[in-house]
Amino acid sequence: MTWLRRLAMFVGVTVLGTVSLAVVVLLVRWAWVYWFYEPTKPEHAAQKAAYLASLPRVDAATAPRFVVILFDDLGYGDLSVQGNRLIHTPQLDRMAAEGLRMTQFYSASPVCTPSRAALLSGRYPVRSRTHQHVFFAEELFAATVRKMLGAANELPRDEILLPEALAAAGYATGMVGKWHLGGIPGHQPNDFGFQEYFGVLWSNDMQPLHLYRNRTIETRDETEFSRFGFFDEDGPRTPRGVDQRLLTRRYTEEAIAFIERHRDQPFLLYLAHTAPHVPHFPDPEHAGSSAGGPYGDVVEDLDRSTGAVLAALERLGLATQTLVVVTSDNGADYEGSPGGLRGRKQETYEGGMRVPLLVRWPGRVSSGVVSEAMAMNIDLFPTLLGLAGLPLPPDRVIDGVDLTAVWRSGAASPHDLLFYFPTIGASPAAVRDARFKYLRETGQQWRSKPHLSDLLLDQEAHNLVKRHPEEASRLRAVLDTMTRAVQQNPRGWR
Amino acid sequence: MTWLRRLAMFVGVTVLGTVSLAVVVLLVRWAWVYWFYEPTKPEHAAQKAAYLASLPRVDAATAPRFVVILFDDLGYGDLSVQGNRLIHTPQLDRMAAEGLRMTQFYSASPVCTPSRAALLSGRYPVRSRTHQHVFFAEELFAATVRKMLGAANELPRDEILLPEALAAAGYATGMVGKWHLGGIPGHQPNDFGFQEYFGVLWSNDMQPLHLYRNRTIETRDETEFSRFGFFDEDGPRTPRGVDQRLLTRRYTEEAIAFIERHRDQPFLLYLAHTAPHVPHFPDPEHAGSSAGGPYGDVVEDLDRSTGAVLAALERLGLATQTLVVVTSDNGADYEGSPGGLRGRKQETYEGGMRVPLLVRWPGRVSSGVVSEAMAMNIDLFPTLLGLAGLPLPPDRVIDGVDLTAVWRSGAASPHDLLFYFPTIGASPAAVRDARFKYLRETGQQWRSKPHLSDLLLDQEAHNLVKRHPEEASRLRAVLDTMTRAVQQNPRGWR
Repeated sequence: MTWLRRLAMFVGVTVLGTVSLAVVVLLVRWAWVYWFYEPTKPEHAAQKAAYLASLPRVDAATAPRFVVILFDDLGYGDLSVQGNRLIHTPQLDRMAAEGLRMTQFYSASPVCTPSRAALLSGRYPVRSRTHQHVFFAEELFAATVRKMLGAANELPRDEILLPEALAAAGYATGMVGKWHLGGIPGHQPNDFGFQEYFGVLWSNDMQPLHLYRNRTIETRDETEFSRFGFFDEDGPRTPRGVDQRLLTRRYTEEAIAFIERHRDQPFLLYLAHTAPHVPHFPDPEHAGSSAGGPYGDVVEDLDRSTGAVLAALERLGLATQTLVVVTSDNGADYEGSPGGLRGRKQETYEGGMRVPLLVRWPGRVSSGVVSEAMAMNIDLFPTLLGLAGLPLPPDRVIDGVDLTAVWRSGAASPHDLLFYFPTIGASPAAVRDARFKYLRETGQQWRSKPHLSDLLLDQEAHNLVKRHPEEASRLRAVLDTMTRAVQQNPRGWR
Repeated sequence: MTWLRRLAMFVGVTVLGTVSLAVVVLLVRWAWVYWFYEPTKPEHAAQKAAYLASLPRVDAATAPRFVVILFDDLGYGDLSVQGNRLIHTPQLDRMAAEGLRMTQFYSASPVCTPSRAALLSGRYPVRSRTHQHVFFAEELFAATVRKMLGAANELPRDEILLPEALAAAGYATGMVGKWHLGGIPGHQPNDFGFQEYFGVLWSNDMQPLHLYRNRTIETRDETEFSRFGFFDEDGPRTPRGVDQRLLTRRYTEEAIAFIERHRDQPFLLYLAHTAPHVPHFPDPEHAGSSAGGPYGDVVEDLDRSTGAVLAALERLGLATQTLVVVTSDNGADYEGSPGGLRGRKQETYEGGMRVPLLVRWPGRVSSGVVSEAMAMNIDLFPTLLGLAGLPLPPDRVIDGVDLTAVWRSGAASPHDLLFYFPTIGASPAAVRDARFKYLRETGQQWRSKPHLSDLLLDQEAHNLVKRHPEEASRLRAVLDTMTRAVQQNPRGWR
C-alpha cells in the first residue's frame, strides 16, 4: 500500500501548501494595507486650493438659496405623482405641480456611494474612485477587504464638492443626513465644505449607526458590534441608541433650523435622508397610516418632511429666492416600485438608475411642466454653480452640464449622451442618447449579449441590435471611446 | 517534522476518503437508476382505462371543435393588444376584439414542462411529477442527473390528458409543435391521446431537435452532439437538419392540414409553437420587418400563423363551431416584455406566470370583452371537457375549474384561490385571491421574507404583511394547508 500512502501524502502536502501560500499572500497584502494605505495622494490638492481661492464672493442679496433633498433608494414609481397607487405623497405632488418634474432623470450609479459622490462633484463615479460599490466603516472587516482589493474607502481629498465651492464663495453650507463618502478624519462632511453637519456617516442598515453633530458623536449606536452586521426591521439586530423611527423627523427639524439660522444669507442645504432605504421604521406618529405598508409609511414621512421644509421657506419669505431639488440616489431596492421600468437597485437597467426629479423655484423654474429631457445627478453641480455665478474647476473633467434652460423653459436636454456606470467597475456599462440605449451585456448567464433598447417605445424588453445595427455600432463605439478615456485618465485630470 | 508529515497524511487521507466515498455513492445511485428506474408505476393505469372506457361518444354534428394555440415564453406584454409598442400583432388583436381577453390569466408554472403538463391534465404540476423544472432528452447527461436526484423525466402513464379523453369520446386529436413531456417510448404525444403528431419533443434551444412525424423522426438534427448543448441564435451552435426559421410556417401548414382533414368531425388541435422561446430565427419571408427586432419578427410570425388558422376555420365554415384559445406557457424570458409586471420566467412573481389569454368562438363567447376574472391554464381541461359534455375523471383531483360562464358572459372567476408552483419544488410558493397575493418568501438574499401584495393597486412593489396582518395570516394558513395536502398526496389520488 506504499503507493496509497504516497498518494495520500502528495494530496496532503498539496492541500497544506496551497492553504499556507494563500495565508502568506493575504498576510502580506494586509500588512501592506495596514502600513502603507494612502487614502489621498497630495498631487492635486494645490489645484483644488487654487480654484477655491479664485472664486468670487457672491452677492448676498441676490445669490439664490439651494435646498437639495435626496432620498435613499426611493424608486422611480414610489410617489403618487409618479403613478404609485398605494403611497400618497400630496406634498411632493404639489411641489411637482408648482415646479418641474423630469421623467428621464438618472442617478449616476445604481448604488449609494458612487451616486452621492457624483451628485456632489458633478462627475461620473470613476472620477472620484467611488466606482467599486459602497464604502464601509473603518472598523469593519469589509473596509479592510476593500483596501486589500485596491478599492478606495473614502472620497479623495482632492475632489471638489459643491459645498466647498459655494462655501468659498460665501455661502452657508449645511448637511443633514446620510454621508456615505468616508469616515476617517479628513474625509467627513465637515472636511468637504459643509460648515454644519448633523447625520449618520453610513447607510440606514449599516453599523455603526452613530448620529454625528459635526465631527462629534451626539448619539452613539450601542448595538452589539458585528463585523458583518446589517440592520433589518424584522431581523434580530436593531440599533440601540439611535431611534431610527425618529430620524426623518429629527433631520427635518435640523434642516429647518439651518434654514432659519441662515435666512439672511445665501445657503446650500443638502438634506440627504436615510429613508426609504431598509430597514423601514416609520415615525410612530403616523405609523400604519399608509396603504403601502411600512415602506409607504416611511415614504409618506419623507413627503411630510418635504412639505415642512417648503412651508418653512414660505414662512420665512424665502420661497422665491430658493431653488428646491428633490431626487433619489438610485432606483428601488427589492422593496419599492420601479414604476414599470426593468431592473432595480444594483442594476444598470433603467429601474436601477432612473429616479424622480422635482425642482421648484417660483418664478424662476417652469411651473407644472413635465420634462422628458434626459439628465443626471452629475448635472446639479454645474447647474447650481452656474446659478450662483461661479465658474467650474478648470483642472478636471466635469461630466455634468447646466440644466438651467431645461428648468427655466422646458428646453431640450443639453446632453447628447449619458453613461451608466455599474455597481462595481471603472468602465461604463451602458450609454444612451435621446432614443436608444446600448447595454454592453445583459449579464444573462451563458447567453449574455449586447442589448439595444428603444427607450421611447419599450422598457428594455426587446433587443434591437439586429434591427438597428448602425445605431448599435455607433453607440458601441461611443462606449468604447469613453471606456478607453476613463482607463487612461480615470480621475479626469486635464 | 514528524508532526508535519502526520498532518499532511491526515489531510491526504481525509481528502481521498471523502472523494472515494462520494464516487461510490454516485456509482451506486447511477446503477440504481440504470437498472431500476421506473418511469411509470402501474397502480393507477386501470382507473385511467376505466374512465376512458366509460366516456360517452359525442354527437359528431354538434360537438364543438377545439383549437388550443400555445406560445412558448411569450410575455404578458408581448402583443400589441397587451400594450406592446414595438411588436404589431393585428391578427391576435382582432381575435381579442372578436372574442374575450383575460388580464388575470396564469400559466401553472414559470417554466415549460410543468406548465404544459398542467394545461393538458387540468392539474397543478406536482400532481404529474413535473414539479422539478424541465425534462431532458434521455441521451443527455442532464436526464441521468435528474433521475439520480429522484426527479421524473417523463409524464407518468397514468396521467389523463385532454386528448385522451376527447379521443375516447370520438374526437380527432392532433398535436403540432413542442411536446416537452418526455421522450422515451410510451411517453410521446401519440402515447397520450394524440392520434396525429408533428413537431419536436424538446425546447427550441435543446438537443436533439429532431422533427417527428408521429413516432418517427422525419427530419434529423444533424448538429454535433453536445451533452450540455443549447442553441442560441448568436452562439457557435445552431441546428443542422431542421431549419428553425421555417418551424412556425411548417407548424401552421400542418395545423391547417389537420383541420382540413377533420373538418367533418369534432376535433382537438393542440398547436404548441416552439417560438418565441430562444433562439430567435424569424421566417426569412418577413425577417427584419418588425420594429421589435428578431424577437418581434418571431412574434409577428406567430401572429400571422394564428391569422392563417383563423382564416382556415372561416374558409371551411367552421368558425362558429370552433373554440380557439391562445395563451403562453409562462412569462417572458430575459427577452420579451412582462408588460410592467414584476419578474420573469422562472419566477413566481406575476411576470413569470401571468400570460395573455385570448378566446374566440363567434356567437358562443362574449365579443370584445376584457375579463379581469382570475384563471389558470389548469382550467382548460375541465372547461373543454365540459363543453364537449364529458365528465371529469373521478379518481383524482382536478385543480382547474370550468370557465364557460366567464367566457360566455364575462362572469366572475369561479376560483377563490390560485396557487403558484415554483420552478423547482413540490410545494406552492404563493397563493392569491381576488385581491391579495401571499408569496412565502421573496428570495432576496439574507433579507428574504414573506411578501403580501395588493394585486389590484400594485405590481408586487410593496410588502403589505404588516399593513394587513389578518390577510397575510389567512393566506399563509391556506398556503400551509395546500402544502400539507400536496405533501401527503402529491398525485392527488382520491
